[in-house]
Amino acid sequence: MSHIKNLIPSTVNPDLQKERTGAEFDVEEFSAWWHGGQDKLKRKREIEEAIFSDLEDGYGLNHEYMSHEEVYNSTVKKVAEAAVKLKALQNKLNPGGTDIWPGGLYNAQSYGLFPANHPVATHITMFVDVIKGQGTAEQAEKWGKAAANCNIIGTYAQTELAHGTNVRGLATRADFDPKTDEFVLNTPNLEAYKWWPGGLGHTANHAMVVAQLYIADVHHGVQMFIVPLRDSETHMPLPGVDIGEVGKKLGMASVNQGFLGLDHVRIPRTNMLMKFAKVERDGTFKASPASRINYLTMVYTRCLIVSQNSMLHLAAATIATRYSAVRRQSPIEPNQPEPQIIDHVTQRLKLFPEIATGIAYHLATEYVWEMYDQTVLEANNGKFERLPDMHILSCALKVLCTTDGCAGIERLRLSTGGHGYLIAANLSNIYGNAVAAYTYEGENTVLLLQIGRALVKAWASFVEQKPLSASYSYFATSMQLKEFPKWDDSWQCIIKALQYTAAHKTRIAFENLANRMASGQSQGAAANNTGIELTRAAELHGRQFVCQTFLEQITGAKAQKRSPALNRILENVLELFLVQTVLNNLNDILRFINLSDADLRSLQKRLEDALERFRPNAVAICDGFGFHDRVLNSVLGSYDGNVYPRLFDSAKRSTMNQKPVQTSFETHLKPLMKAKL
Amino acid sequence: MSHIKNLIPSTVNPDLQKERTGAEFDVEEFSAWWHGGQDKLKRKREIEEAIFSDLEDGYGLNHEYMSHEEVYNSTVKKVAEAAVKLKALQNKLNPGGTDIWPGGLYNAQSYGLFPANHPVATHITMFVDVIKGQGTAEQAEKWGKAAANCNIIGTYAQTELAHGTNVRGLATRADFDPKTDEFVLNTPNLEAYKWWPGGLGHTANHAMVVAQLYIADVHHGVQMFIVPLRDSETHMPLPGVDIGEVGKKLGMASVNQGFLGLDHVRIPRTNMLMKFAKVERDGTFKASPASRINYLTMVYTRCLIVSQNSMLHLAAATIATRYSAVRRQSPIEPNQPEPQIIDHVTQRLKLFPEIATGIAYHLATEYVWEMYDQTVLEANNGKFERLPDMHILSCALKVLCTTDGCAGIERLRLSTGGHGYLIAANLSNIYGNAVAAYTYEGENTVLLLQIGRALVKAWASFVEQKPLSASYSYFATSMQLKEFPKWDDSWQCIIKALQYTAAHKTRIAFENLANRMASGQSQGAAANNTGIELTRAAELHGRQFVCQTFLEQITGAKAQKRSPALNRILENVLELFLVQTVLNNLNDILRFINLSDADLRSLQKRLEDALERFRPNAVAICDGFGFHDRVLNSVLGSYDGNVYPRLFDSAKRSTMNQKPVQTSFETHLKPLMKAKL
Repeated sequence: MSHIKNLIPSTVNPDLQKERTGAEFDVEEFSAWWHGGQDKLKRKREIEEAIFSDLEDGYGLNHEYMSHEEVYNSTVKKVAEAAVKLKALQNKLNPGGTDIWPGGLYNAQSYGLFPANHPVATHITMFVDVIKGQGTAEQAEKWGKAAANCNIIGTYAQTELAHGTNVRGLATRADFDPKTDEFVLNTPNLEAYKWWPGGLGHTANHAMVVAQLYIADVHHGVQMFIVPLRDSETHMPLPGVDIGEVGKKLGMASVNQGFLGLDHVRIPRTNMLMKFAKVERDGTFKASPASRINYLTMVYTRCLIVSQNSMLHLAAATIATRYSAVRRQSPIEPNQPEPQIIDHVTQRLKLFPEIATGIAYHLATEYVWEMYDQTVLEANNGKFERLPDMHILSCALKVLCTTDGCAGIERLRLSTGGHGYLIAANLSNIYGNAVAAYTYEGENTVLLLQIGRALVKAWASFVEQKPLSASYSYFATSMQLKEFPKWDDSWQCIIKALQYTAAHKTRIAFENLANRMASGQSQGAAANNTGIELTRAAELHGRQFVCQTFLEQITGAKAQKRSPALNRILENVLELFLVQTVLNNLNDILRFINLSDADLRSLQKRLEDALERFRPNAVAICDGFGFHDRVLNSVLGSYDGNVYPRLFDSAKRSTMNQKPVQTSFETHLKPLMKAKL
Repeated sequence: MSHIKNLIPSTVNPDLQKERTGAEFDVEEFSAWWHGGQDKLKRKREIEEAIFSDLEDGYGLNHEYMSHEEVYNSTVKKVAEAAVKLKALQNKLNPGGTDIWPGGLYNAQSYGLFPANHPVATHITMFVDVIKGQGTAEQAEKWGKAAANCNIIGTYAQTELAHGTNVRGLATRADFDPKTDEFVLNTPNLEAYKWWPGGLGHTANHAMVVAQLYIADVHHGVQMFIVPLRDSETHMPLPGVDIGEVGKKLGMASVNQGFLGLDHVRIPRTNMLMKFAKVERDGTFKASPASRINYLTMVYTRCLIVSQNSMLHLAAATIATRYSAVRRQSPIEPNQPEPQIIDHVTQRLKLFPEIATGIAYHLATEYVWEMYDQTVLEANNGKFERLPDMHILSCALKVLCTTDGCAGIERLRLSTGGHGYLIAANLSNIYGNAVAAYTYEGENTVLLLQIGRALVKAWASFVEQKPLSASYSYFATSMQLKEFPKWDDSWQCIIKALQYTAAHKTRIAFENLANRMASGQSQGAAANNTGIELTRAAELHGRQFVCQTFLEQITGAKAQKRSPALNRILENVLELFLVQTVLNNLNDILRFINLSDADLRSLQKRLEDALERFRPNAVAICDGFGFHDRVLNSVLGSYDGNVYPRLFDSAKRSTMNQKPVQTSFETHLKPLMKAKL
């Protein structure tokens, strides 16, 4: 076994190398397209070289062996060190920009620096932004700069122990005291404790507290208040502040999510964010003129989630695909060597549709980002027509991307067999990071019900022949058809079929809702009882949108900027995605569209053909996503494919393997073995 | 906030109490039925009282805050203490039995004692059993007794770093040396290291090593060898033994799975298990006359998995259902108080089908256990006809139960919203324990392909009008029909529809396989290319079986032993399960069976009605499963429903909350905050 020294070869696994050599397109072209241009790709690589090259061995896994406290303290050290490094790099490469500092604290690279996430993430992504977006100029000057430089560290405290998605149910109160010109913030009971804010446990010394505003016992809705939590010198909690962390979670081990109880804590009136709603010195309340603006913040956050989650989905796909090219198991032909498992058709079905799905959501997000920029532009000119559409589409995208992505990540983990169960594969950690988004920023079912209600409202307008916004235009084109036309093999046919099905599902939800109300149910009860149909219609509405945008991004004018070879690859990805979407939704489609046995056989054949054509390019497509090994952080998915040496190496690093016999042998195991039970 | 002292009330949450009061059946009757009789239920409660009542507070969560090493050492202590306690209890309550000792180390109660599992589990469930089943009388005397009393601790070392499900690919060698009458065990390369055996890392001092037997370089298949690993006094690894743990995993934190390399390690010839195959002193090899017997072991293990996993599925359902009765969120009627979330129809759809599914698999396993006992009886009389059927059905049950159960546990976790993300909810831990079974004892896709191949083989016999075993009899009844008869609302209609669909899916897989071979593909390539259809046919074969057995267990002669009230409840569970199964498989069913729009509306209505009827009994049904709070180990799912106090209490116990300021504040956070970045 002497060959098991010097574990990790400096060469690439030959099976993986063979895959790269056999690819039918130029990976560099793919990668430049994927990253938005050659320049951006180059910059990304430069940054990664700078921030990852000096990390010690085991950086990404060490925390897994530590106690809960050690994980936290070691991560704070990592953040403090990274902050200095990122800031310097930003000044060097792109002074005044934000792509490296603070970008490196929350973008894709941050997964390489902080595999268990970190406790300053909420500060950077929410506290700083909310002050900028909702604070007055004075507030931005006073708090915003200090926050941006980490002179103070904040968090965003909205969710309570007993209230999440239903923000109106929050119970934390802020009462204005005109005598002292202060707000008194109070947590009336245990259920109203703030719960979940990142960094709240032991890191932040300020919180943006979302509370019900009362002036002379008159309620003025939910507002935001900057509340100091800890002494800036000693970090001790301030009087009236009951604070701690919520305990260990399924993922995000280092985020230090906390709880917060406030016992009549007083803050100056000027600590309420007042860019929109205002409380004046005499207690006069001025409502916000711009409730629609808040929509934009939600849309922005949901687009961010889709970007992040599709990235995590594709990271998992990269790990599983590379592993499937290296792992050999179960002969296809008796007496032949075992094949790469990527050659089993059932394995291809586990891998390639996930890659296609991740790409679909990535492209849909790009589309929605463009639409978002357009909407912001219009909103700045006082035009808000596009906003409700934007809102519903971003909800649908968030729901579908997190639902499909999380289920996909877990399927990918399972596709790697036993080794995927190891933390060192990093697939469970990716899942833990991704799946939180299923719940936050609007729990997925709650969002689907919102979308469903918007759909039946739109359907009512459609029935009454009122004007409809663009995203519902397929209602008309679908309902013009007496029945769905003859099935053909075109992509347009698939899009139309999904739209036709979505329109009819909406019709049925609308009819059932109306019938229930006609039979005497209240609107609330009828909507609740129609919940299953509403959510299903909402899902299909989202799916036709994702398919439609995918088609436009691949076949539209943008295709001409890409080489024919790359377009051939992308068209096959599209084909796979569309065919899979049809096959996965046949239970609804077949209700409205009569597909013959020949049509169904043809779809099955198209699926198998698309998988077959995908095969030689799968590894290269994953390479094209350009994940740095530090970001993947996986013994199964590294670029060099040295799977078994890396598995063994990671085991050897386990703290338990640093000594041959554990202390419990003498204290408990040996006595058990020597006892006469 | 003074009311937040003395956190956990001694009363039951009133919403939960109301559910119990409103149940329409006698929970005690359900529970006695579920546990196989009033006596067994009483015994179970007696045992739980004895083994759980003196555990300290936080027993089930403390390990989550420890370092990897501490988790291990504290668990060894727990095992050593439990062993003494369980053995004494066994002697007191049922001398000579095995239900408490060693049963308590692997049955449902063991989850209460060892929430992160433990490193002696593989010893008890495999090492001891394999010696008993495959060893000679002398071997049982020499090793079996010492193992049963934990004087030696073993593990079962089969899987290797590069070989899992494909046992024939194992590369560890055992060469017979006639000069010394020994076997020489050797690990030829890194890929052949044993990997995964529970307790192998630092606990076991023996291993049952599965290796390729060679005598004078002639191969004699895979055999089992007892290999001493560690010195019995010092526990140091013996010469030639490279041993350690594989590193942290997604679940089973305390199982201490290990790796093992053997460098020409010598053991006496008599250390090979020789009840069946034999190597004599002169090197003569006698093959096993009873390869079919091995089938029975596999069947047994898979039935055990289904028992365990359906139990875990229902534990998760109990937690989520109780939480859903306590949690209030999102008004159904505007200006009304927020309802229990169990009143949202979409929430019911997340909960009740999981309960029904867990019950279905539990009942299917009971059926298969009976069939298993019958098969063992027949096998002892030399009759093996039933064995292949048993094998295929147990494979199908294992695949479906772990697939549906694991996905279900995660859906249930997501149904509890944010709080399910907390470790203290225990849903992620239940998932981690359950999902390993997706891969071990035959990876699920590999098993589906096996079942699929058995199906097309059976189809070939059917086409040739050869006799078929009972489990394929639906081929004939289905194919006699020219087309599927008019849809009606009976359960029989649903069963027939599933069988009809399964038969036609098998037919299509068979035809495609034949066509591919006719077009010149080898049998191996054709089978691989038909993989998607084979696995789908296999799945449907399993589903019709589970539905059929559920129907028989609920409506058959056994129903007469239950009260009409209980039967009404169970019939609704059956109704829900059958309707859901149809709706979830419509994409295949609609291909072969023409359901009208009215039929589909009727199915949707049946689903909604079944959910509605389920509502008042959901909590009580979960109570009927009889999970002890220690086994559920969940702040969301305890019997008293004090969800928020328990959430807060668990947070307060976090090691990080024992001091207000962490050490990294002075060392890194404060310097960051004082720095001018």
